Amino acid sequence: MKPPIELINYIKNNDNFALVIHVNPDGDALGSMLALGEGLKAIGKVLKMYSRDGVPHYSRFLPNSDIIIQGLPLEDSSTNLILIDCNAPKRAGINGDGFIKKLVIDHHLTEEDFGDIKWVDPSAAASGILIYHIIKALEVDITQNIATNLYTAISVDTGTFRYQNTKADTLSIASELVSCGASPSFVAEHLYNKWSLARFNLLIKFLNSVEIYDDIAITCLTREMIEQTGAGPHDTEDIVNFSGMLETVKTSVFLKEADKDFWRGSIRSTKVNVADVAAKFGGGGHKNAAGFKANSEISVLKKQLLGYLRES
Amino acid sequence: MKPPIELINYIKNNDNFALVIHVNPDGDALGSMLALGEGLKAIGKVLKMYSRDGVPHYSRFLPNSDIIIQGLPLEDSSTNLILIDCNAPKRAGINGDGFIKKLVIDHHLTEEDFGDIKWVDPSAAASGILIYHIIKALEVDITQNIATNLYTAISVDTGTFRYQNTKADTLSIASELVSCGASPSFVAEHLYNKWSLARFNLLIKFLNSVEIYDDIAITCLTREMIEQTGAGPHDTEDIVNFSGMLETVKTSVFLKEADKDFWRGSIRSTKVNVADVAAKFGGGGHKNAAGFKANSEISVLKKQLLGYLRES
Repeated sequence: MKPPIELINYIKNNDNFALVIHVNPDGDALGSMLALGEGLKAIGKVLKMYSRDGVPHYSRFLPNSDIIIQGLPLEDSSTNLILIDCNAPKRAGINGDGFIKKLVIDHHLTEEDFGDIKWVDPSAAASGILIYHIIKALEVDITQNIATNLYTAISVDTGTFRYQNTKADTLSIASELVSCGASPSFVAEHLYNKWSLARFNLLIKFLNSVEIYDDIAITCLTREMIEQTGAGPHDTEDIVNFSGMLETVKTSVFLKEADKDFWRGSIRSTKVNVADVAAKFGGGGHKNAAGFKANSEISVLKKQLLGYLRES
Repeated sequence: MKPPIELINYIKNNDNFALVIHVNPDGDALGSMLALGEGLKAIGKVLKMYSRDGVPHYSRFLPNSDIIIQGLPLEDSSTNLILIDCNAPKRAGINGDGFIKKLVIDHHLTEEDFGDIKWVDPSAAASGILIYHIIKALEVDITQNIATNLYTAISVDTGTFRYQNTKADTLSIASELVSCGASPSFVAEHLYNKWSLARFNLLIKFLNSVEIYDDIAITCLTREMIEQTGAGPHDTEDIVNFSGMLETVKTSVFLKEADKDFWRGSIRSTKVNVADVAAKFGGGGHKNAAGFKANSEISVLKKQLLGYLRES
């Protein structure tokens, strides 16, 4: 896997960059941006890193995450945009038109027509893998901080090497990052073992809500259930994976009530292309993991989802 | 990491082997034995593989696991013993005295005085790592089956690269095994996503039973609770890790009622040497993961455990 030469050359030959990631950033977006930012600074670039939604508290263990600006860059003709872990400006909350040049680095399946120089490769397990190759191509040393940020990015998007996107090179890159100072147990502790009691109680409610339809599990948390536990807005993150533990379940859907009859859905599957199913609701994502929003009465929504999933 | 030359030479120069693993075998014991067995057969050795307790149904995805004999070998002067993933014959249910020579390959902390040629290295994340090096030293090709068995062995004992024992070489070996045909998602699916509904319901009961004492979580399942779910004897395996998800928890204890006032305990910790604590009850294990049995009234046992853990 090699970054496009024009991407590397453009970075080498220019100085001012604004790095931007998608809204509701996950560990792949944040870790990738932080690693690239540190790498570019090491070769003298001037840059700032932006996240419209800041850094969620559970991602603040990422080295240097405190320097990420919560907000969006001025789109002016003195700065180049590097859009990371998404490929459409609206996913990052920006307009995207005002920059000198627009660079895009992403691994998501659905690709939009945006950017002057792009590296969008859905075969990469994580944007962190692409950033790793960019850092190598720029001949920047992998510091312990870069290693930890990239190791986290890759861990988040591979379920720490459990998903189908984990290949031999994913693990060999991870091995190199550990040699450079990343600690697998430190990262795993922060990703998986930092549950608040509120989130823990939310998990119990989630598990109790499981409904099984052949190989599909549907779970559902209402606003009231979430409020009862005192859980915060990020506490439902990735909780959908827990119903996938069931032997008979190939597809897991989690519906979270965001407002009256307004639901945020997460789908995970080892069988169905869930990006396609999410797209029917105007959502998107990866083949095995996608999300959507729907304005609907819950029983109607469940029926609709079951229909789409069964015909996929 | 290199196997002792006398171990490699003895294997090369002798023909008949009985491979034996510990009772209640886990994926490291089974995968290690199966990989070594296939490797030795590839260089013409005559051998049989034994497990006193057979192969639990959730480990039957391991390639060739159906050729493991449920039982113990005849201890006679025509066979060499290779004891794997334990270093005391009683851990395997054997006497151990009747064999020509006794070879021991293990990575557990507590080492006993048994065996003619030994490779006991607690710095290895899994016995699978030791077997990998033995197979390399014997210059045997790593087939897809060997790769899957070793990848599983290493996954089980590192929590798929999440525990402190995961090092750069653990990941580079894993990468090589994937190149040889091991599938990370196939193995992870079998290790983590094959829960029966009964086990799933047991997990909910387990989570509901959590009691927190500072950074210690104690959970407890009675025979009645287990029976209510219809869960089987292996369904409590590794369930203890779930209370470790809590941010404030450094040490997790799980007590399972085996008989009236007779408890099997599992301890996991990122802080305390739990092998020492388990040893106070006549148990043992690793620094971060250990087990014991205790004949006691539950409230007395909890107090005793809390005392030991707090003074550790």
